[in-house]
Amino acid sequence: MSPIMDRRSVLAGILAAGLPLSAVLPVRAQAGPLASWHEGPVKTSILDFVGKVTTPSARDFVIADERIAVFDNDGTLWCEQPIYSQLAFALDRVKLLAPDHPQWQTQEPFKSVISNDLAGLVRSGEKGIFEIVAVTHAGMTTDQFDRAVVDWTRTAKHPRFHRGYTELVFQPMLELLEFLRQNEFKIFVVSGGGIDFMRPWMEAVYGIPPERIVGSSGMTRYVVGEDGGPVLIKDAKIDFVDDGPGKPVGIHKFIGRRPIFAFGNSDGDLQMLQWTAAGSGARFMGIVHHTDADREYAYDRGSSVGKLDKALDEAVNGHWVVVDMKQDWKVVFPS
Amino acid sequence: MSPIMDRRSVLAGILAAGLPLSAVLPVRAQAGPLASWHEGPVKTSILDFVGKVTTPSARDFVIADERIAVFDNDGTLWCEQPIYSQLAFALDRVKLLAPDHPQWQTQEPFKSVISNDLAGLVRSGEKGIFEIVAVTHAGMTTDQFDRAVVDWTRTAKHPRFHRGYTELVFQPMLELLEFLRQNEFKIFVVSGGGIDFMRPWMEAVYGIPPERIVGSSGMTRYVVGEDGGPVLIKDAKIDFVDDGPGKPVGIHKFIGRRPIFAFGNSDGDLQMLQWTAAGSGARFMGIVHHTDADREYAYDRGSSVGKLDKALDEAVNGHWVVVDMKQDWKVVFPS
Repeated sequence: MSPIMDRRSVLAGILAAGLPLSAVLPVRAQAGPLASWHEGPVKTSILDFVGKVTTPSARDFVIADERIAVFDNDGTLWCEQPIYSQLAFALDRVKLLAPDHPQWQTQEPFKSVISNDLAGLVRSGEKGIFEIVAVTHAGMTTDQFDRAVVDWTRTAKHPRFHRGYTELVFQPMLELLEFLRQNEFKIFVVSGGGIDFMRPWMEAVYGIPPERIVGSSGMTRYVVGEDGGPVLIKDAKIDFVDDGPGKPVGIHKFIGRRPIFAFGNSDGDLQMLQWTAAGSGARFMGIVHHTDADREYAYDRGSSVGKLDKALDEAVNGHWVVVDMKQDWKVVFPS
Repeated sequence: MSPIMDRRSVLAGILAAGLPLSAVLPVRAQAGPLASWHEGPVKTSILDFVGKVTTPSARDFVIADERIAVFDNDGTLWCEQPIYSQLAFALDRVKLLAPDHPQWQTQEPFKSVISNDLAGLVRSGEKGIFEIVAVTHAGMTTDQFDRAVVDWTRTAKHPRFHRGYTELVFQPMLELLEFLRQNEFKIFVVSGGGIDFMRPWMEAVYGIPPERIVGSSGMTRYVVGEDGGPVLIKDAKIDFVDDGPGKPVGIHKFIGRRPIFAFGNSDGDLQMLQWTAAGSGARFMGIVHHTDADREYAYDRGSSVGKLDKALDEAVNGHWVVVDMKQDWKVVFPS
């Protein structure tokens, strides 16, 4: 069974059962919108913003077609520690493929990956990471990669929480997505992560369809095989990096309209937030600040993953909304 | 007034008046769907296909989320003769900018453009065309380009029909878009034309929003100006060519799902049609064959614009649907 058919049958089953998507998304029974958010200025600012842009008589009213909301993914919608999940996927995949590549036992950076020597991997530098991405993300068809991602989301477990990675999504943010959807926002993911890595699972997990997912990508080639069937081959060559100043570029390229609502968590989201803020009319810019080492992680200016420094300064200066994970969220992950 | 605000106010006006978009699109009063299509095998094949993929009890049923329909633009949704409209835009823009560039009076390829010497322009070759694209499509912000396109659509007239270019859209195809929309298809334009050239007017003319328009693009750069406001600058460097084998690549990149319905008119659409055909389940592949020199144009295998040769052969072999413009369409353009 192809992962495409698989996704199709899951969705078809949902629709055949007459259930709304929200009934199967991991959203808890709710008294009102944003049930997992503590009452306070952050929750109020979200409710107020959505209220004023969706009230036809309000000065800040925005028609539904133009209610563009963009969300970073890593660290904004799901956990990004101790390493980006996509890197965990790549390392797991090296181990999975290792039996077919006996030379990797002695060849860096693969040797370090196979022996769980993260320090060795770090020593291999950017070149090493590129080699890992090349063997795990290229040289196959898009359908084959899709299947590899789906298989991984079903089996891999997070080293600290011992749960599947797609279970380590932020419950309050799922509720925010649902609340915006109910208010006829068009919701997009705009992530530095790989577009082909995100699309296979995001519709089921976030309710966001593939065409509303923007990310980094490698080059893809159309090839008609000897047996006649056309395929798309993933090459080990960078096409687009959807991070930092690449995010407004990606928004322009894929969406073609400036967002009125943006949420991020790191300096990689700074330009996306600036670009959103610079539009006319009402705007909402939000940042998830990871302040909760007990329930998730606490990190900001000094972190190598999800560094939040300049964007935090600009949030204060620009009066953007900063979510204090520890103070603002009743729960972090779905139960 | 910025063109963005302008588009917004047009749409806001429509919505405020309580009109559905279909009421203001140039679609004539209809007895049933596809009113401008003559009865016959082509119309029947469209109705049959849409019927079977939207009937829940049918073997070929497809859930709404996966009803992806893709349309080429030039020659499929609007007239592409005697030259691509985007080239007409570029030539008109050279003339508009000429007073600020006195050196163009003696400098090719501009001299030929200004003096309406198409033969001279052809002699300037690919390099000449690139120079024209560079001065008319780059070196400005995305907002400035957007405004230039909107201004042009309001003033420029087609040399033969003496109507605005956005009036020279195919009435039967507008009805097809509306019919698919009513049947909950997600409709995308997948065109070799420039994405920034198409987005400013397609929502008003076709009812297709910017995020569902896929096209060729130049590189774009995020720049924070000295006065603090961020802008996106269009550079004279090719980013992506959405034509031929680039179309399935563009579909994968922007949509992330294989279409079940595709319409084109030239060899530039061959791979998009092949890619659509190669999916599992029911598929519809259609080609507009320009056979009507009286009401529009007649061209195919020998044409330099919109050459239809290999795709016509494959249509016959693969039993794709070929629209005979003269036989199948009661009218060509909206009245």
